[in-house]
Amino acid sequence: MRKKNIVELTRCTVEEYTSMKKLPLMLLADNVRSMHNVGSLLRTSDAFLVEEVVLAGITGCPPHPEISKSALGAEESVAWRYVRDAYAEVVRLKQEGWRICVLEQVHGSILLEDFRATSGEKYLLVAGNEVSGVDQRIVDIADVVLEIPQWGTKHSLNVSVSGGIALYVLAMEIGKHQR
Amino acid sequence: MRKKNIVELTRCTVEEYTSMKKLPLMLLADNVRSMHNVGSLLRTSDAFLVEEVVLAGITGCPPHPEISKSALGAEESVAWRYVRDAYAEVVRLKQEGWRICVLEQVHGSILLEDFRATSGEKYLLVAGNEVSGVDQRIVDIADVVLEIPQWGTKHSLNVSVSGGIALYVLAMEIGKHQR
Repeated sequence: MRKKNIVELTRCTVEEYTSMKKLPLMLLADNVRSMHNVGSLLRTSDAFLVEEVVLAGITGCPPHPEISKSALGAEESVAWRYVRDAYAEVVRLKQEGWRICVLEQVHGSILLEDFRATSGEKYLLVAGNEVSGVDQRIVDIADVVLEIPQWGTKHSLNVSVSGGIALYVLAMEIGKHQR
Repeated sequence: MRKKNIVELTRCTVEEYTSMKKLPLMLLADNVRSMHNVGSLLRTSDAFLVEEVVLAGITGCPPHPEISKSALGAEESVAWRYVRDAYAEVVRLKQEGWRICVLEQVHGSILLEDFRATSGEKYLLVAGNEVSGVDQRIVDIADVVLEIPQWGTKHSLNVSVSGGIALYVLAMEIGKHQR
């Protein structure tokens, strides 16, 4: 099987990307400390047609050389904006009809693999700080808390990996209703 | 919903982890340049009960401070070893009965979401270099090439993210036969 070359990968330009129909899927990254993780989440959001990324609290924003190193240009294609107060933003988006999906390990979570999207709904994924996770106040107003099952010694994944896995699963599920 | 505390996460010790039954799932990382990515792949492998990680070619090995920064101790729990020649190792593992699953974008790939595990089979996931991907000779002897669908301007994910997504999907699929 021959690898696809750069033409066959049908990469689009930033202009083409901007005009493409996105998935009804947003990402809110709250208090993500590492610029590498921010860049990686932007790159993953570019791949999965995320409508918008909200960078909140202490989360760093482009332009920043460390973000560019892992975003590799996705900071130019993906729509993003900064808000200071993640909780207030989640309250506002919930009122606008976004389903609030928090990525956390809590009592009452559902397994990520059991997530099912509903046609016509729009989904906000919230990922939190590398150490303390997602703000309990945001957990408390979530429509669903999604948990990635883990069996090892750490019980925690890098947030760019856990966020990437969750964006992939949500994009596949939500995408079923868009095709 | 209350966050799980450190006790409720039921993290196991390195000794307990070592004696746990792993999934029939191995990861081979060939020519992964970034130590951060190596550490992250080890951490993800710890979470998903990967039997062994093979670090090949120019891929860096523990102990290394940059690997420890993203592995966060998983380099102590996950079984790993180094081989110089990834191709020779894949040939050997294929002869031992491992199903060779390459993560690449090729003509004839199947979508990752369409991967189905068979009871009694064991699976080797091969991830390659950040820029050049997996060696064409390894692609040529793969049993299956798995592709993560991507729609954006980049058509490439960070290898710790693409490897993490693939390990998650394979672990969930293979795990169905282990429960």
